[in-house]
Amino acid sequence: MLLTIKPFQAVQFPPFIKQVQQQQPLVHCMTNDVVQNFTANVLLAIGASPAMVIAEHEVSSFVRVANSLLINLGTVCGNTAKSMLLAAAQAKKTQTPWVLDPAAVGLALPYRTNIAKQLLLLKPTVIRGNASEILVLDEQNSSSKGPDSQDSTESALTTAISLAQKYETIVTITGKTDYITNGKDIYSITGGDIALTKITGTGCSLSAMVAAFIANSMDPLLATASACFMMKKAGELANKQQGLGTYAVSLLDKLSLFNISDK
Amino acid sequence: MLLTIKPFQAVQFPPFIKQVQQQQPLVHCMTNDVVQNFTANVLLAIGASPAMVIAEHEVSSFVRVANSLLINLGTVCGNTAKSMLLAAAQAKKTQTPWVLDPAAVGLALPYRTNIAKQLLLLKPTVIRGNASEILVLDEQNSSSKGPDSQDSTESALTTAISLAQKYETIVTITGKTDYITNGKDIYSITGGDIALTKITGTGCSLSAMVAAFIANSMDPLLATASACFMMKKAGELANKQQGLGTYAVSLLDKLSLFNISDK
Amino acid sequence: MLLTIKPFQAVQFPPFIKQVQQQQPLVHCMTNDVVQNFTANVLLAIGASPAMVIAEHEVSSFVRVANSLLINLGTVCGNTAKSMLLAAAQAKKTQTPWVLDPAAVGLALPYRTNIAKQLLLLKPTVIRGNASEILVLDEQNSSSKGPDSQDSTESALTTAISLAQKYETIVTITGKTDYITNGKDIYSITGGDIALTKITGTGCSLSAMVAAFIANSMDPLLATASACFMMKKAGELANKQQGLGTYAVSLLDKLSLFNISDK
Repeated sequence: MLLTIKPFQAVQFPPFIKQVQQQQPLVHCMTNDVVQNFTANVLLAIGASPAMVIAEHEVSSFVRVANSLLINLGTVCGNTAKSMLLAAAQAKKTQTPWVLDPAAVGLALPYRTNIAKQLLLLKPTVIRGNASEILVLDEQNSSSKGPDSQDSTESALTTAISLAQKYETIVTITGKTDYITNGKDIYSITGGDIALTKITGTGCSLSAMVAAFIANSMDPLLATASACFMMKKAGELANKQQGLGTYAVSLLDKLSLFNISDK
Repeated sequence: MLLTIKPFQAVQFPPFIKQVQQQQPLVHCMTNDVVQNFTANVLLAIGASPAMVIAEHEVSSFVRVANSLLINLGTVCGNTAKSMLLAAAQAKKTQTPWVLDPAAVGLALPYRTNIAKQLLLLKPTVIRGNASEILVLDEQNSSSKGPDSQDSTESALTTAISLAQKYETIVTITGKTDYITNGKDIYSITGGDIALTKITGTGCSLSAMVAAFIANSMDPLLATASACFMMKKAGELANKQQGLGTYAVSLLDKLSLFNISDK
Repeated sequence: MLLTIKPFQAVQFPPFIKQVQQQQPLVHCMTNDVVQNFTANVLLAIGASPAMVIAEHEVSSFVRVANSLLINLGTVCGNTAKSMLLAAAQAKKTQTPWVLDPAAVGLALPYRTNIAKQLLLLKPTVIRGNASEILVLDEQNSSSKGPDSQDSTESALTTAISLAQKYETIVTITGKTDYITNGKDIYSITGGDIALTKITGTGCSLSAMVAAFIANSMDPLLATASACFMMKKAGELANKQQGLGTYAVSLLDKLSLFNISDK
């Protein structure tokens, strides 16, 4: 089977961001300790409504009222792993769209790699990771040394397609070029800026944006691609002349101006 | 009994911020994972001294040296709930002023709603929430879908007054208009900016500011109103032309400039 | 024995920052909830690669792949204390350089003070604290009321030297003047800006920077001094005219521009 790669077109984007802005989806975020604040601000900037709920006693009932769910393994530990498995099981039951961000899975961290594989069986709507993280999920080796590994996204594309088919999910590999595939169609997105890798939380917040875009969406594949496109665009537009502190602030600015200008 | 609503006057503010700046109260913060950094920076900006201490083994002894305590339920879980109940019990015993922020209590989250009600019995000096959170505390229903619910503050004012009387506390409802009441007197504050609701942590850090303002205060009602006034003013002054990233930074700037200009 | 204090010279700095930029050390951070994001961004800004890994199941294996380790007690609790002790024991075994930041140890917080003393026995490469924290480690009293105590660094210098000798470590006291000693040599660094104490996380991220600088270093004493020098310089260069929000952003900018200009 030969699959062709379709470049995502800017013109495909507006209906998806408009839906986020109009519906202001409630995104239940279970994410890592490093990016909680940035993730919440990114979601608010694009017009969504973030809620970080993590207690084992609360996650199942909150998944029921949320429009989508994000699970990110960045700083997973015993307590949060249990909550995440409960939340994902609930999302599967209620067919709540959810995103798995298998942050930093790999050889050095077998504990979280094992949790990621358990979560995979609970039918994530979308998996979003960098190339090495996606490679690890398919039992292939990777030389990943941590969350910002620089395996090229091309190297993981075949794996992404096979994962998408096997788990009936959408797999998104982000990097210099992003690829988004459901195992049949593949979209690619170029652009962005290397500075996006020099501030913490851009990948993690992109996963949260994906969760916002797929909430109530009839077309989760293009919704996911739209989120990736928006992050790359904002990354290009953000001011990097002053240094990385200003760049992070400006990235939020640009995400929020997309919001305003398209309303 | 007919209670009249008194608009808070700018002229009432200076002595309260001056006390914070001169005494630099040590504010023991037990708050949620999303806003820890922002809260600490807000407290430093106004001249207070934040300390985040959460371990079950430490909270009681730290309440004894702190000038005030903040308890915010935003990301409460099993471990932190236990610590919060210990800290509040200690604050009651040592008469340390403390603020309860019942973040996101409501129908979808009965676990934290139950914890909030236990904490209510430990005599918080001030309760600060949005309208739906305050409504929930009085066993009334609310259509809250999360931490940023838009019930109008007017709708919760009667409840606030009755809660204040029942628990001998100060209840603060923040929103388009803020109301602060001890069950006898009611202050209102208008102004602010809708952008305050588009960045994360402004409500949570306001609760922390209230904790700073009531430390050692002879007039906790006006001290609480002063904190609310300061946040609304800073929210008006902050630059929102560049987008929401800049707005959050500028809000901290304005809070810290209040600090400098009034010294 | 009379030890002389040598002022650190700017000319000593370039080789150390160049090594960080070229080797991009993977810094395993176990730090407090308040400064996770800022610490990650500081490490990225100077060219290092941060990874926050905290789960008991993961820390030992991750220490083996990391180039250095940071342990900061700021918000330590039962679970994280256990993980920290495991990680430090592993670092001792694999001779991974590691930094102990005994944040807020003192009379009011005996639990963490006890953990700090257990960690001391696991041979930290560097200890970085303010004067009161260093004093506490040597069983002397201090009037510390929290993490930002203003004991002068001079007052703790004798203690620092004796701790360095006793535990065969490098002790760094930061404040108006920084002192860095291995018990034989002492470097001092002046400069910086009082505004560094008015935003949260500058001390904590300096500890993380030290971890980055000592990774693979043949001269950990001067590597540590170089990290302190860089933070003081960035603190001087950062824009403080607009207020403390802008100052924090500008500090990251300046750290990242060091990076760019020296490459």
